[in-house]
Amino acid sequence: MAQKPSIPKGTRDFNAAEVAKRSYIMETIKEQFQVYGFQPIETPSFENSETLMGKYGDEGDRLIFKILNSGDYFKDLRKNDVKIALRVSNFFGVYDKILRSLDDDLSFSETLRESIDVYFKNDDDYIKVLLNKTFNIFKEDFLNFKNLNSVGKETVKSDAFIAFYNEYLKEYSMNSYKSTTLISEKALRYDLTVPFARYVVQHQNEIEFPFKRYQIQPVWRADRPQKGRFREFYQCDADVVGSKSLFQEVEFVQLYDAVFSALQLEGVIIKINNRKILSGIAEVIGAQDKLIDFTVALDKLDKIGEEKVKEEMRSKGISEEGIAKLQPLFTLKGDFGNQVESLKSILNASEIGLKGIEELEFINTAISNLELKTATLQLDVTLARGLNYYTGAIFEVSAPDGVKMGSIGGGGRYDDLTGIFGLKNMSGVGISFGLDRIYLVLEELGLFPDTITEATKVLFISFGDEEAMASLKAVSKLRENGVKAELYPDAVTSGKQMKKQMTYANRRNIPYVVLVGEEELNAKTFALKHMESGEQTKLPFNELLETLK
Amino acid sequence: MAQKPSIPKGTRDFNAAEVAKRSYIMETIKEQFQVYGFQPIETPSFENSETLMGKYGDEGDRLIFKILNSGDYFKDLRKNDVKIALRVSNFFGVYDKILRSLDDDLSFSETLRESIDVYFKNDDDYIKVLLNKTFNIFKEDFLNFKNLNSVGKETVKSDAFIAFYNEYLKEYSMNSYKSTTLISEKALRYDLTVPFARYVVQHQNEIEFPFKRYQIQPVWRADRPQKGRFREFYQCDADVVGSKSLFQEVEFVQLYDAVFSALQLEGVIIKINNRKILSGIAEVIGAQDKLIDFTVALDKLDKIGEEKVKEEMRSKGISEEGIAKLQPLFTLKGDFGNQVESLKSILNASEIGLKGIEELEFINTAISNLELKTATLQLDVTLARGLNYYTGAIFEVSAPDGVKMGSIGGGGRYDDLTGIFGLKNMSGVGISFGLDRIYLVLEELGLFPDTITEATKVLFISFGDEEAMASLKAVSKLRENGVKAELYPDAVTSGKQMKKQMTYANRRNIPYVVLVGEEELNAKTFALKHMESGEQTKLPFNELLETLK
Repeated sequence: MAQKPSIPKGTRDFNAAEVAKRSYIMETIKEQFQVYGFQPIETPSFENSETLMGKYGDEGDRLIFKILNSGDYFKDLRKNDVKIALRVSNFFGVYDKILRSLDDDLSFSETLRESIDVYFKNDDDYIKVLLNKTFNIFKEDFLNFKNLNSVGKETVKSDAFIAFYNEYLKEYSMNSYKSTTLISEKALRYDLTVPFARYVVQHQNEIEFPFKRYQIQPVWRADRPQKGRFREFYQCDADVVGSKSLFQEVEFVQLYDAVFSALQLEGVIIKINNRKILSGIAEVIGAQDKLIDFTVALDKLDKIGEEKVKEEMRSKGISEEGIAKLQPLFTLKGDFGNQVESLKSILNASEIGLKGIEELEFINTAISNLELKTATLQLDVTLARGLNYYTGAIFEVSAPDGVKMGSIGGGGRYDDLTGIFGLKNMSGVGISFGLDRIYLVLEELGLFPDTITEATKVLFISFGDEEAMASLKAVSKLRENGVKAELYPDAVTSGKQMKKQMTYANRRNIPYVVLVGEEELNAKTFALKHMESGEQTKLPFNELLETLK
Repeated sequence: MAQKPSIPKGTRDFNAAEVAKRSYIMETIKEQFQVYGFQPIETPSFENSETLMGKYGDEGDRLIFKILNSGDYFKDLRKNDVKIALRVSNFFGVYDKILRSLDDDLSFSETLRESIDVYFKNDDDYIKVLLNKTFNIFKEDFLNFKNLNSVGKETVKSDAFIAFYNEYLKEYSMNSYKSTTLISEKALRYDLTVPFARYVVQHQNEIEFPFKRYQIQPVWRADRPQKGRFREFYQCDADVVGSKSLFQEVEFVQLYDAVFSALQLEGVIIKINNRKILSGIAEVIGAQDKLIDFTVALDKLDKIGEEKVKEEMRSKGISEEGIAKLQPLFTLKGDFGNQVESLKSILNASEIGLKGIEELEFINTAISNLELKTATLQLDVTLARGLNYYTGAIFEVSAPDGVKMGSIGGGGRYDDLTGIFGLKNMSGVGISFGLDRIYLVLEELGLFPDTITEATKVLFISFGDEEAMASLKAVSKLRENGVKAELYPDAVTSGKQMKKQMTYANRRNIPYVVLVGEEELNAKTFALKHMESGEQTKLPFNELLETLK
């Protein structure tokens, strides 16, 4: 039976227009990456599981797509299961022992405990608890065992075992968490940063540092799909590794500006913060462990107002004294310079906080000096993405005012990118572009140039093999001159077919049609029809080429 | 502990030069695809397993990478295993029954048979055989059971169960072949043709037919990696679906010629054959079922000579009479026309064979008429790729004489591409380019243009924040003018560091270096050094830009 075709949820097919628009964005980004001196690398779609697992937290581990081993992938799990066979056999040992010796309530519990001790002497506590639980569920049945008929006896036996076995499988043999490494050793890339770190360490002897690389490739996440969130999507990353210079941060701000200006997307806001400032504030208010609670609360200032933010901070255990020290934060207003002054007043006792301010000022001064084309750099003390790994600057880009969309880019500095793979003291800083969201923004604002979806320029319609042959000669010459030209493969033999081919040209937005009939064949001319105006002219080939070029 | 980083076997990292070279090939192919009127589509990296499984034969199914379900993927397999729990319980039923009633040899076999009948009445034959086998292995132990001590008794019990259980797991619960669908419902794309067929059927109402699409995306195969064979590699396909016109075949021959000419790879040989000719020959010699044996043998003609080929045909069961009819094949020589005449003499009694010849002649005549730029079209009756699905033309492209390399492209016509997904009567024809092999050929012949690996044009070296700031201003203006420019992020503070930065420029093949020191800063000039000649000049910005543009 034929299958009704579909694709996995969270994935997408892209048609020609979508591919063209996505390519336009990616090519624009790529061009700027190259002008800024970044070099492309590509890494495999799947990595060894140990390269990825444990790098994104428990939630990340869960969302990584694992690839089943090839061949007899259950081999190792079965080997592992010799132990289960022994335990199952021992389960029936306990079962027999109970049947043979029980006669009263006391004796049931004691017999159970004793026989578990005999058969599962050196085993996990978990299985002892499980056995105890299981047999106690069937206690009444066991006490009444002698009065059961043979079917009843069999039922108790199999019911008790099934109850035990299912729980057993869940914990031991078929535990989806514990057993994964036995049946899967590869996993699909979850982002481009960890593979980049792996690449840098693996190829460190072939790389000149500082290493500026870009990478535009798909990543996969087993996230619940929803509007704008997919299980397969592209990341566009640029990173530099091997230098601590703040000029890198300056260049990344410029790079964001360059890309969005090239995409005609004017007015984006590049928000910047610094992890050291957040650490400084937490230090000053004595809440080093409440960095995230504090920023989450502060982030709501615009929405819920000063009093409610303070309430939330109190509820998270931030002291009254600490909150008082934060007072200047609540009135943080004005331009970069003014905000920095307020921050200084809070952080004057924190060395790390002042270092953060110094870094921010350096970047802001440089950017003021260099001038951005269409974007704006904005300090946002509530910006707290990537606190697990960012150690310095934190970036996030918002679409222009009036466009409802989450961030369309983000990044930051991480002081120890490659340490997980054994290469210490490699500071890195990088940014990422959100392709899918940028696509939606450009679509909403009508910023895709019309030219990018222009496909075939001219369709040749013909009326028989001889005419088609003459057409194909012309088509070939047009193609050699870079004109996107097509020959409709089947010859027109009726008015209905003629209409079908015209409709075909129309639906595919092909602007010109050429008709080569007997007359044109003899006169060596081409009847060129402009589809929109309906205008039709007869031309020799040279003029045809000139018109279509 | 830090992991020693590596990637899965059969996969590759690509560095900047490799990415650039691969892009060059893909962009060249893409450009010609577009000029020929093909439209790009993209499909997801993974498809639902039922879309892929069963489409590539058993071997193909085995080589498809399966993705483990997310979350508690063992859930369904555990559910499936309630049955195993019952069977295990019943195993011990049989065990008890035997112990209770056996006393002599006859009684052991009978008791075993009877108790299996009782406990496994409606079960598979396989499990009955397995039980019989298992208990018989332990027969001596059972017959001697009363004489065993308690440890011995337990050992018999658990040994018998373990023997049974392992075999059981292999066949039922943890059978890597049968259980895959319970833990995996998605799989990585194995080629681009099946996803294309799925796409056409799924989107048939949005598509204008004939539909000319191209697709350049990676595919994955769990093949044993070896030289030139990878587990992740790109396919570059162009197909037309929805027309039977032979002009399509003609255009594909032109397209191959156009792409390889654009790549400066002159002299490739486009081999063509037709499935109908092979069917015709098989018909004529009365060996319709020996199509592959026959072509495999014929293919060896050049290597082993006429007599040995005939010997092989005989050994495969092709009749003496049939072989005699093939005589003209053994002397098949000369140009397309001569070969076709020989074929006609063999196939004059086969309707399908003559149809195949007619198709071949049509294509050859058109191509002679249109003329190829650098490639040659060659008839090859031994060409037999894709016999499972090709129904008309068969293509294969060889690298120019003197380059040792398998085929660098291939394709053909398939009359029922989309039938598997329920859309009947859609004839398709398509070709594919072998990216990795084309890469190796271009590398071997030195055909990659030097320009494609040109990265950064100029590196600015500076001596402090103030100089760096002035440099970055110049760098920014150069970038705005499309010049790939970089600022070395860290300032030179010693001769050693100066040397380090010069080495950096050298190793990265950056042709120019600009030095901005105090003197240049004051004079508003730039010291430009050409790395190869060592020549150094001082220029104002405008002249710098002119030189580097």
